[in-house]
Amino acid sequence: MRATVLHAPRDIRLDTLPDPDLQDDTDAIVRVVAACVCGSDLWPYRGVNKIRKPQQIGHEFIGVVERTGTAVSGVQEGDFVIAPFLFSDNTCAHCEAGVQTSCVNGGGYDGCQAELVRVPWADGTLVAVPGDVDEALLPHLLTLSDVFPTGHHAAVSAGVTAGSTVAVVGDGAVGLSAVLAAKRLGASTVIAMSRHEPRQEVARRFGADHVVETRGKEGAEAVKEILGGIGADAVLECVGTGDSMKQAFRAVRPGGTVGYVGMPHDVELNIPVMFFTNTGLRGGVAPVRAYLDELLPDVLAGDIAPGEVFDLSLPLDRVADGYQAMDERTAIKSYLAV
Amino acid sequence: MRATVLHAPRDIRLDTLPDPDLQDDTDAIVRVVAACVCGSDLWPYRGVNKIRKPQQIGHEFIGVVERTGTAVSGVQEGDFVIAPFLFSDNTCAHCEAGVQTSCVNGGGYDGCQAELVRVPWADGTLVAVPGDVDEALLPHLLTLSDVFPTGHHAAVSAGVTAGSTVAVVGDGAVGLSAVLAAKRLGASTVIAMSRHEPRQEVARRFGADHVVETRGKEGAEAVKEILGGIGADAVLECVGTGDSMKQAFRAVRPGGTVGYVGMPHDVELNIPVMFFTNTGLRGGVAPVRAYLDELLPDVLAGDIAPGEVFDLSLPLDRVADGYQAMDERTAIKSYLAV
Repeated sequence: MRATVLHAPRDIRLDTLPDPDLQDDTDAIVRVVAACVCGSDLWPYRGVNKIRKPQQIGHEFIGVVERTGTAVSGVQEGDFVIAPFLFSDNTCAHCEAGVQTSCVNGGGYDGCQAELVRVPWADGTLVAVPGDVDEALLPHLLTLSDVFPTGHHAAVSAGVTAGSTVAVVGDGAVGLSAVLAAKRLGASTVIAMSRHEPRQEVARRFGADHVVETRGKEGAEAVKEILGGIGADAVLECVGTGDSMKQAFRAVRPGGTVGYVGMPHDVELNIPVMFFTNTGLRGGVAPVRAYLDELLPDVLAGDIAPGEVFDLSLPLDRVADGYQAMDERTAIKSYLAV
Repeated sequence: MRATVLHAPRDIRLDTLPDPDLQDDTDAIVRVVAACVCGSDLWPYRGVNKIRKPQQIGHEFIGVVERTGTAVSGVQEGDFVIAPFLFSDNTCAHCEAGVQTSCVNGGGYDGCQAELVRVPWADGTLVAVPGDVDEALLPHLLTLSDVFPTGHHAAVSAGVTAGSTVAVVGDGAVGLSAVLAAKRLGASTVIAMSRHEPRQEVARRFGADHVVETRGKEGAEAVKEILGGIGADAVLECVGTGDSMKQAFRAVRPGGTVGYVGMPHDVELNIPVMFFTNTGLRGGVAPVRAYLDELLPDVLAGDIAPGEVFDLSLPLDRVADGYQAMDERTAIKSYLAV
């Protein structure tokens, strides 16, 4: 099969590798229909995460089940499936608590920007899409493997409910997804913090009521001005840097919560300030599987169109261009047709 | 009036000071009926917080309104009142959001282990107890000024609801109050972490289902063993040291929340672990005023007896003994009859 392999920083290639095979009777092999590039793929791409040897990459995909192990009963050959970016048995105590990312049998795939993927614990992991799948739905369905549920997780973690005021830090695909998720959960006011015109446009299409272009203290003041002098009930931190976390805590109101889903790099917290202002921090790596039962019907019904985060669509053999465009911020998120 | 003054570390005296007077038309003067010593009073008592000059101390009290400013209409002379440990106008945006501890007009009293206290923003701060007050209720009512709502805040911040599994770190008066609060909110299992027999006894009276005496990794393992192999949904951190916070995060399950109310001293957080396990942190200084409408009726009805945290009752002129007993951990919490 053809599969994307990262050889060295910014050296990414579509190589020919052996097809994956069933290894356990709970496995499935899925033929990928579409994959995409995640902001977190850019950490190793840029060499921030060390690359010791060539490694397959990619963790978001949708596809069609090609083969299943003998113990698999929940999905079968020919099913169109969504694959959460981590696999899980969906039966252990952590899975039952809705934290499939901590599944005792869970883990990551070998790499999904490829033609075939072996999915361990297929029954606990894959979610079949009922009926025929309209091609126009593919980008929206693909977001369900990671980016949209991750934005949703930021909103849920920050306690967004009907009437909440929300500020979103980060205008990447996750931040934009968080805007859509917050609106979907009934937020009364959503403020997108973005200084990039094309991203502002997507944010507005996703329901952002306001866009704040300034950052730092000035940005926080702008948020407060919109919200009657106090900060937001919920701030969704969708970047993961020290600066973005600082920005988030500057923009949250006393008693509010920062929901964070950006993988933290050099983040420091001012605990005394958090204590005296009762500002909380919740979030982490999104338990996508937990959210699919709720989110998939909305996508199938056309109530939400999370696939609008894709502004570049390429065939798999141009995967390197997909990375480069995201690295240079000329694309928000790259869709790869396989 | 007689008032408690901290002169130097462990040098605490009942001095004679001028009576406080009304300063603003929103003030009230309250004659104290009972006050008490807080764990946080021990920080300056022990010299951990610097003492530059003699200072009045104490922030928990109940009493009878003696005089009110011309703008006060919510309480009147003769009312028996509970005073949250911080005053607030109860009308600003933060107060309306239930975070009276961040009131734009809020602050602390001059010192409440005294015969008289000036209460700014009396209407927004004081809560009158309806009807005649039975003397037997005094200790329970006194806990409503701080310690019981603080335990309640830990439980609320950690998201305790019906069926939650809860571990409580800290067996001081706040930790014990947190046990009672968690049970009151419907927790199915409450584990008190305590190695002191008299405190274990109070914890059990307050509804603790289990007591864990061990600490560190061993303590966390004991919690997990009780809870079917995973940690607690909610851990209530009621101490504020680096060790107690570490203990809390060791005992919480993936996806769970640490509710913290111990004023943090040298606390560090392992953010990557929090991120990958989706363990959150919420809490802070308790907005007592927000909780009184909910908690006072339960005390008046005799449904809860939070005053059992007091195991030493002294007249005000023995306040120094009350501090010493708590400092040496021979008393859980000292009640001062004024």
